[in-house]
Amino acid sequence: MQALILLLALVASVEAFQPRLRSFSPVRAGASSLKAVLGKDEKVVVIGVAADSGCGKSTFMRRLTKVFGGANVGPLGGGFGAPGGWETNTLVSDVTTVICLDDYHANDRNGRKVSGLTALHVKEQNFDLMYEHIKSLKEGKTISKPIYNHVNGTLDTPETIKPTPIVIIEGLHPLVDPRVRELLDFTIYLDISDDIKFAWKIQRDMAERGWTLDQVKASIEQRKPDFAAYVAPQMEFSDVVISVLPSDISKEEVGKHLKVKLIQKLGKAGLTPAYILDKEATVAVHPSPAQVKVGETVGVALASYKQKFYGRDVATVEFDGKLTDIKDYTNVEKILSETAAKVPGELAQELIKVGPNSPGSLDGTGLFQTLTALKLREFYETTTGKKVSA
Amino acid sequence: MQALILLLALVASVEAFQPRLRSFSPVRAGASSLKAVLGKDEKVVVIGVAADSGCGKSTFMRRLTKVFGGANVGPLGGGFGAPGGWETNTLVSDVTTVICLDDYHANDRNGRKVSGLTALHVKEQNFDLMYEHIKSLKEGKTISKPIYNHVNGTLDTPETIKPTPIVIIEGLHPLVDPRVRELLDFTIYLDISDDIKFAWKIQRDMAERGWTLDQVKASIEQRKPDFAAYVAPQMEFSDVVISVLPSDISKEEVGKHLKVKLIQKLGKAGLTPAYILDKEATVAVHPSPAQVKVGETVGVALASYKQKFYGRDVATVEFDGKLTDIKDYTNVEKILSETAAKVPGELAQELIKVGPNSPGSLDGTGLFQTLTALKLREFYETTTGKKVSA
Repeated sequence: MQALILLLALVASVEAFQPRLRSFSPVRAGASSLKAVLGKDEKVVVIGVAADSGCGKSTFMRRLTKVFGGANVGPLGGGFGAPGGWETNTLVSDVTTVICLDDYHANDRNGRKVSGLTALHVKEQNFDLMYEHIKSLKEGKTISKPIYNHVNGTLDTPETIKPTPIVIIEGLHPLVDPRVRELLDFTIYLDISDDIKFAWKIQRDMAERGWTLDQVKASIEQRKPDFAAYVAPQMEFSDVVISVLPSDISKEEVGKHLKVKLIQKLGKAGLTPAYILDKEATVAVHPSPAQVKVGETVGVALASYKQKFYGRDVATVEFDGKLTDIKDYTNVEKILSETAAKVPGELAQELIKVGPNSPGSLDGTGLFQTLTALKLREFYETTTGKKVSA
Repeated sequence: MQALILLLALVASVEAFQPRLRSFSPVRAGASSLKAVLGKDEKVVVIGVAADSGCGKSTFMRRLTKVFGGANVGPLGGGFGAPGGWETNTLVSDVTTVICLDDYHANDRNGRKVSGLTALHVKEQNFDLMYEHIKSLKEGKTISKPIYNHVNGTLDTPETIKPTPIVIIEGLHPLVDPRVRELLDFTIYLDISDDIKFAWKIQRDMAERGWTLDQVKASIEQRKPDFAAYVAPQMEFSDVVISVLPSDISKEEVGKHLKVKLIQKLGKAGLTPAYILDKEATVAVHPSPAQVKVGETVGVALASYKQKFYGRDVATVEFDGKLTDIKDYTNVEKILSETAAKVPGELAQELIKVGPNSPGSLDGTGLFQTLTALKLREFYETTTGKKVSA
């Protein structure tokens, strides 16, 4: 039941950002970003976030943009429904612009029917344009970017994107093209294991869309080869991978509870990996019920260790299970070192502020997305010399 | 092989303190403690250490007395062989007196042959005299204490014991008599599990004394009922229990490597339990080979947790395995919190100073005996208000 609620919340959140149920609107004249104005000679920091669709990316995007002081987070131009607004995939806040890479699809839905390829295939992505645009934004230039309409699958009239201090590109292929990778200052991969994808899809497609189990299975199997060939290999180029796996400590059905790993590259300038107790050691922590109240499962478990990941040295932190009381993050935070919090307790406060009803807010996805947001802020400050207020 | 060396060192150390091969000497006129003079109205802190014989108690006693600034540790009166010295079980240092409770045996060896009881039986211990003596020492009074001669099993002419700031009573029954327990400020139990006792005895009695396996087994079985009835129950009354068990991480034969637990009572004034990372949580730590070099076994593993022990709340720290390089204690110390070290690194330095050849100096027995010594120093300072130099 809890998983269903979580999933509904997740889906609701995704829908809120990509309003598929709304019809296409061509109105976009006079549109501008909310506030984000780039200073003269100001560095544009570009962040790449790779992830499959329907994996809670938009929740993550809100967590990321929020930490940069983006109280005014919303769709570019106010989005469809706002005066002068339009159907957009671009999210802006005070200082950030989030571009959805679906906007660089080479073909619309009909075109893909002709090519016979899935949107996961690199041949369906216009990497040349993507590269030119990101290069331009990084140079402080305004671009005119196409819009992929998720509702009807068409490529709409382009929208104007002005450079902002932080530009996030998110989608299936941010790290595939070496020219694009070269432009990225920080890279993140949101990795959902097949078991969890399957459990989530079962919930969504069977419970909500009336699919049969065979249909769900077929849809997953169909996407697997291209996903494995073109999306998953990007983990090799990611500074941070957030990996979502089935819980080890929960005895309930797969997918109900999660074990989430925060896999952090070692040796990247501006990124100081979080860890528990000791950077070198392998550490496992089971908080007591006095620290983390035990609810429907056996509580939570944390771990921290160094490992090899795609041939590179990484520092991994794990969070298994789920909080019952969101306030217990204050005790979880005390267990972690190098959270990039500006004041002790900031990590917990960020999570508590968002509240327990936000997708993943009680499990490792919320924790590590928020931690990654703080790490990104730290990275931004270190590399630009600018200060973001806590 | 390593276990044999360890055991030989252990036995050598025990022998050095209780020189069984030397004959009885009645000379003790004019004897006095080395230096330890009790100030007027100075509190005498009495510490009870319960342990079976042949368990490395004397090594532990040296670690305990050393931390109180006892550079001049030695037998009372200089011991047998010194001018005016005699065969004694009493160890003195600058500020401490260690009394062996074997001196309160009710009968000598011949007497026990008549009674048919082992020395483990409480009927073989003179608790009335023990109580009177400890009470007197605590009141700053000098006592005249019998001596049990380990060589020939007789009760020798008493020796004079002057009170010192710290008096340690060690032996089989320090915590059995409620009147004695009441007098004790701090209590310790050195607990060697049956598996380890057996392994050690096999080594010693078969390899060195030419016993058969059956003889070793019979000797162990014979002592078990009285040990279980009169010695082991004292764990309930101990502020600290050091428990020595077979290693979990070593794949070698039982007894070669140890897992040692430091079990610390919660809520005792003056005793702040050591822990790892977090007082409430259950924590497991596997240091990397960069921190603790891996030698003949799989390295070391530490743990920390709260538990119930004889119905009471305790904080337990575990150390499994053995160091290859004694200097790695500096990294082990960093993992521990509340070590009672006066300066960071003092715990490791104490261990390193003693050197790798001292019994248990590379495993959890050395670590936790030294840690307990620092805890005792802290307890002494807290309860008396006096300072012991680091």
